[in-house]
Amino acid sequence: MDVNALPSKLLEAAVNEMSSLPGIGRKTALRLVLHLLKQPRESVTQFSNSFLTLRNEVKKCSVCSNISDSNTCDICSNPHRDHSTICVVESIKDVMSIEATLQYSGVYHVLGGIISPIDGVGPSDLTIDELMERVAAGSIAEVIVALSTTMEGETTAFYLFKKLALYQVKISALARGVGFGDELEYTDEITLGRSIKNRTPFEKVFGASS
Amino acid sequence: MDVNALPSKLLEAAVNEMSSLPGIGRKTALRLVLHLLKQPRESVTQFSNSFLTLRNEVKKCSVCSNISDSNTCDICSNPHRDHSTICVVESIKDVMSIEATLQYSGVYHVLGGIISPIDGVGPSDLTIDELMERVAAGSIAEVIVALSTTMEGETTAFYLFKKLALYQVKISALARGVGFGDELEYTDEITLGRSIKNRTPFEKVFGASS
Repeated sequence: MDVNALPSKLLEAAVNEMSSLPGIGRKTALRLVLHLLKQPRESVTQFSNSFLTLRNEVKKCSVCSNISDSNTCDICSNPHRDHSTICVVESIKDVMSIEATLQYSGVYHVLGGIISPIDGVGPSDLTIDELMERVAAGSIAEVIVALSTTMEGETTAFYLFKKLALYQVKISALARGVGFGDELEYTDEITLGRSIKNRTPFEKVFGASS
Repeated sequence: MDVNALPSKLLEAAVNEMSSLPGIGRKTALRLVLHLLKQPRESVTQFSNSFLTLRNEVKKCSVCSNISDSNTCDICSNPHRDHSTICVVESIKDVMSIEATLQYSGVYHVLGGIISPIDGVGPSDLTIDELMERVAAGSIAEVIVALSTTMEGETTAFYLFKKLALYQVKISALARGVGFGDELEYTDEITLGRSIKNRTPFEKVFGASS
């Protein structure tokens, strides 16, 4: 099937838009658009409006930059959370990932990306100044830097460590080591090397689950 | 990541809509919606409107039921096509597939589905009456039934053969046989059996490409 010769300009426009989404090729886009075309008008209206409404009405939490329906997100406005511990993450997806563990009761700070010179992302493009303001305001005891262990993630973490070192605050990072279910034979040398060097008392490793 | 605990109701609504598309799970839907959220407002407006406009403004060709921007599609309104030969297909995707071969110069008739009692699709849900009207009007020399070789496709083809037999019109079907690039060892018995029974003069098989 030649997805470049569509019988309608309107179909062409819709397929172009659908295939602008990451990971959606023209063939998949056509399949999705033809599915929409079969739905009742009200469904397609609801479908389209959901993205418009989201884009136009969703807010960023004024404290942590997580996305929210109001000016302060549910986590930042929850009095039962520990507001003296900030977990710094790259994106709102990471907030969801950590929340899903049910192991963290502090608050977050969403950077909105990581420092990546290749992609033209520098410190000023991220919410680093806002983080420093939160820390400078006092009342923060610990900042957990929870970034991916990629080159860009490590660079950003190092930048944050240097900035945060100016304040009286404990700085920590996610524990590195062998993941749950990993086989040692297939674990890379850097990870294995670090996890032997930073070996942990037995009862501490198994403390969370027992 | 727990994709069932989203930090915003607007995000939740958009992810629900996106994951209503076939083959798009909640995790992919979230990824796509977060991508949209990063785009400029005008892009999201254009994205959303493309589906609304398509659904509300696209037309069905009054002759062949192919989708079209006007009342008669480009193929039906093309005087250089052979209007005495109708190729009957299930969907507009099949029109595109056959057009891409550049081997057919007749016109089409899009059924809009195939007879499938399990899915509750009967002959009256398809454009079979419209096809019979076209044939009854005279001037049609040949009807090519080009449906999938599934159980439902064969059933529909048989139903059409019976209906069309009432008219003075040549009825044909797509040639069945071993596909280009198929290895005989892995070709199923029914296909191989049919292609031996309906063996074709050598010069006819290679006629199209030489």
